[in-house]
Amino acid sequence: MGRRFLHAALVGKYQAEGIRPVLEEVAQFLVRQGLEVSFEQQTAQNTGVTDYDALNAEAIGERCDLAVVVGGDGTMLGFARELARFDIPLVGINQGRLGFITDVPIGQFREALAPMIAGDYAEEHRAMIEGEVWRDNERIYEGLSMNDVVVSRGATAGMVELRVDIGDEFIANIRADGLIIASPTGSTAYSLSAGGPILHPGIAGWVLVPIASHTLSNRPIVLPDAGEVRITVVAGRDASANFDMQRLASLLHGDQVRMQRSARKVRFLHPRGWSYYATLRRKLRWYEGVV
Amino acid sequence: MGRRFLHAALVGKYQAEGIRPVLEEVAQFLVRQGLEVSFEQQTAQNTGVTDYDALNAEAIGERCDLAVVVGGDGTMLGFARELARFDIPLVGINQGRLGFITDVPIGQFREALAPMIAGDYAEEHRAMIEGEVWRDNERIYEGLSMNDVVVSRGATAGMVELRVDIGDEFIANIRADGLIIASPTGSTAYSLSAGGPILHPGIAGWVLVPIASHTLSNRPIVLPDAGEVRITVVAGRDASANFDMQRLASLLHGDQVRMQRSARKVRFLHPRGWSYYATLRRKLRWYEGVV
Amino acid sequence: MGRRFLHAALVGKYQAEGIRPVLEEVAQFLVRQGLEVSFEQQTAQNTGVTDYDALNAEAIGERCDLAVVVGGDGTMLGFARELARFDIPLVGINQGRLGFITDVPIGQFREALAPMIAGDYAEEHRAMIEGEVWRDNERIYEGLSMNDVVVSRGATAGMVELRVDIGDEFIANIRADGLIIASPTGSTAYSLSAGGPILHPGIAGWVLVPIASHTLSNRPIVLPDAGEVRITVVAGRDASANFDMQRLASLLHGDQVRMQRSARKVRFLHPRGWSYYATLRRKLRWYEGVV
Amino acid sequence: MGRRFLHAALVGKYQAEGIRPVLEEVAQFLVRQGLEVSFEQQTAQNTGVTDYDALNAEAIGERCDLAVVVGGDGTMLGFARELARFDIPLVGINQGRLGFITDVPIGQFREALAPMIAGDYAEEHRAMIEGEVWRDNERIYEGLSMNDVVVSRGATAGMVELRVDIGDEFIANIRADGLIIASPTGSTAYSLSAGGPILHPGIAGWVLVPIASHTLSNRPIVLPDAGEVRITVVAGRDASANFDMQRLASLLHGDQVRMQRSARKVRFLHPRGWSYYATLRRKLRWYEGVV
Repeated sequence: MGRRFLHAALVGKYQAEGIRPVLEEVAQFLVRQGLEVSFEQQTAQNTGVTDYDALNAEAIGERCDLAVVVGGDGTMLGFARELARFDIPLVGINQGRLGFITDVPIGQFREALAPMIAGDYAEEHRAMIEGEVWRDNERIYEGLSMNDVVVSRGATAGMVELRVDIGDEFIANIRADGLIIASPTGSTAYSLSAGGPILHPGIAGWVLVPIASHTLSNRPIVLPDAGEVRITVVAGRDASANFDMQRLASLLHGDQVRMQRSARKVRFLHPRGWSYYATLRRKLRWYEGVV
Repeated sequence: MGRRFLHAALVGKYQAEGIRPVLEEVAQFLVRQGLEVSFEQQTAQNTGVTDYDALNAEAIGERCDLAVVVGGDGTMLGFARELARFDIPLVGINQGRLGFITDVPIGQFREALAPMIAGDYAEEHRAMIEGEVWRDNERIYEGLSMNDVVVSRGATAGMVELRVDIGDEFIANIRADGLIIASPTGSTAYSLSAGGPILHPGIAGWVLVPIASHTLSNRPIVLPDAGEVRITVVAGRDASANFDMQRLASLLHGDQVRMQRSARKVRFLHPRGWSYYATLRRKLRWYEGVV
Repeated sequence: MGRRFLHAALVGKYQAEGIRPVLEEVAQFLVRQGLEVSFEQQTAQNTGVTDYDALNAEAIGERCDLAVVVGGDGTMLGFARELARFDIPLVGINQGRLGFITDVPIGQFREALAPMIAGDYAEEHRAMIEGEVWRDNERIYEGLSMNDVVVSRGATAGMVELRVDIGDEFIANIRADGLIIASPTGSTAYSLSAGGPILHPGIAGWVLVPIASHTLSNRPIVLPDAGEVRITVVAGRDASANFDMQRLASLLHGDQVRMQRSARKVRFLHPRGWSYYATLRRKLRWYEGVV
Repeated sequence: MGRRFLHAALVGKYQAEGIRPVLEEVAQFLVRQGLEVSFEQQTAQNTGVTDYDALNAEAIGERCDLAVVVGGDGTMLGFARELARFDIPLVGINQGRLGFITDVPIGQFREALAPMIAGDYAEEHRAMIEGEVWRDNERIYEGLSMNDVVVSRGATAGMVELRVDIGDEFIANIRADGLIIASPTGSTAYSLSAGGPILHPGIAGWVLVPIASHTLSNRPIVLPDAGEVRITVVAGRDASANFDMQRLASLLHGDQVRMQRSARKVRFLHPRGWSYYATLRRKLRWYEGVV
């Protein structure tokens, strides 16, 4: 049992239709449970809710001890990245089909949240990837990824050739449409589509998965997350690096993408009894259904 | 730099044609380097070499500080299992195509071994799987695996249904020809043939790979090696458990195969400059050669 | 529109619990529709139904113009093999989850069969594989397969090495757990589990899929069904050939399994509007459900 | 045996360094063999060769009875498309690593071509895909593909959703990075990188292979080439259609790419004894090399 939470920040996927009354309902519930409630600034502005303090990520990190996110996995991962510097746990309420990490259905949020607020929850920690792009000894980009870093060819280019190193060891030259470095969290996202294995969040590693590799012996590899992985663009036009498939950096030949494990981990809270494997089976129909 | 070795045990793939003169050559070299040399008992008996002490695995573990294995990966892994209780490192000399872990070519063994004997080598540690078979609350088999534990159907049976748990969590029911739990060492062996990813030896995990799964969503998963994995036979005829594809246990419905990480790790020595990734590229043509 | 059927043979999965009243219900319906009805001999004997003529496969082939099968895909394929010499079409009524080829649900058999009996149906033709096993210039086995021929290693053997030829061309030496030659019908069965593609029944080809191949460049190949495919056992213990995973032949080194397209095709009838692709989506969740 | 060839057109990868003397050598050899020799217009212009008639593709198709291509598979396929309307066979001389279809090594072109010119060769026919792009009932693009048609997402878009139909049947809605329709010739190109099977050129079918499909049950399917395949863009930004990865058409939502088998086949000539399967083994290391 953890201790009781005192001050919740409420974050919402504010673009979603009809989100405002849902957020207000959750906020009122939290207040009735004795918590102080603040709204994340963007959420407050975009929904027009003014009954609660509006705080930016920095202020939330400093003043709140719980973030309640209403939305899907994308909203949750996005806000987790913003709060990465702080030690604040997140819990996700999902309005639609449950996600991998947003697993409180909106219809049952009261029953689910009440014990969690009181300190009765399952907690898990997820590693993040610190990515940087280097050009001519200058760092031209840096950012965190919860899921993955993807280096890929331009839409009209034939392929990209990438050199991969870890620490002071050369791994391979890879000719492919692209290359994914995924965290365990990201192993059930794009990496899975490209043929990668699932990594349990307890694995201290990244998986390196090629996209449409030009060699047939293109088996994915799971690398320890202790070393720095570096991807250098050797050949190919219009290459780019994607961080969580959201932020893009254009790459030139010789540019290097460097990745290492962030010193911080994200804390996700789930209702007691939550099971990682049950989530896999439900979301991916993993081993469910039979020919 | 490690300290200089003093007493080597020599182990050979004694069935191999013409192994005796090779072993004698290696032994004489080791003596000239100032080491005491003993022969592993089976190796001595089967080759007829009598010029050196013959020691069984137990005695080798207690009295020697280095095991020199002449043979392929199979010989090396087999003897590593036997020496598992002891803290003695192994180095492998290969007469044929270099293996994943036996990487000193016979033609260059002097140049390679001389600095290693003096303490100049690369050392890596490999995890082992402790496997047990339980029937009606009784343990009917136990043994170590360097590579993998494979539970599979009989040759004439349609498929096997296996329930997989880890710790107190249910993972999945798997209907397939079989299921492989592979260590990082085993991830480049049978598991790879069945479609599994490569796990770097630094990964503290096992990979669980189905063989010809009857579901299409049959993606391999990498599990932390901290928990006990249990496979229970639910359905299917003539099921069996294979440990390193060498020792077989027949299984009945309800039988349970339990696997956990051994407290001991095997110590493999390689010539300074050895690279795990170079071995992958050479052995698997991993990312080498292009369509 | 085909012409109206006159004489139906009724075949049932007679081992299934409660099959007798179901068969009688179907028979009575067919009689009321104006058809003469006979029971397949084994079905009559094992269910104890004596109100109808009992005919063996030969007599059915000669005297009936429609076979109505109550059971799953296995029953349907088994009986289709028996009737292969005759030009009689089959329709499948399924008591459980619909199959790939048995797609009339028991609850709607009257509505589905009435127009079909009158000649209004979708018809498709499926190729069969004629398999033979040759030893020392002698044919020691022959038989038909609807799905596949599988040559595989024994349960305790490491692998099997197989040489594959087509016509007078050498294809490859394959080291694997086994090798599957599947017809388009079989491409959604065991072949799919082993990683093979789906072949539409209109494709005049077989797919050759290795099981746990020891090479990474083990991509399946689709071969024209015009030539004779020959698999020769080169190495490996306790190899066997399976025909539709039902009939087994033990193989020695040098034994050769020869396969060619049968001159006959099986005729399956479906309710008008039946869609092969809809069946794929329903049975395999093919492209259904999204990460 | 075919009849002796009389008039060869010479085509070269004119961008390649040092191609001119090679082309002249081949031309002189052909003349000495008694053939009339013309140069393909672009080849003549770009290499500056003026000793031979320069003909455009149309004129070559009408006046020559053999095309000799010096270059790799790309040059060969490109020119084969240009000559598609005519019934002229092509033979490929390769200056570098032999290709799938350009298999006369430059060092042995005399020995290889002499009997071919006299009519002694292996001939194979390859199907082509006629592709069209339709927008609002108007055809905005048409062109031939030897290898494949690829519909894919933009570089910064998350995925594309595509609806696939064949004839009047719905196949599936596919959410992926893209979708490949490959001919047997294309099955060893990009399609193979994306996980597709190999189709022997004798297969009258296309293979449909998703790129990084968002569903796990994303198995490739081989479709008969008799029907028209239509891919409609349902969702996703910056989608495009690529024909042989060379000519690009931007696509809007609702745009439809239609593909059917060309009435014409390309005729490739190979030295007598040429083997498709040997080419696979050599080019892909297919089943060669063993773990």
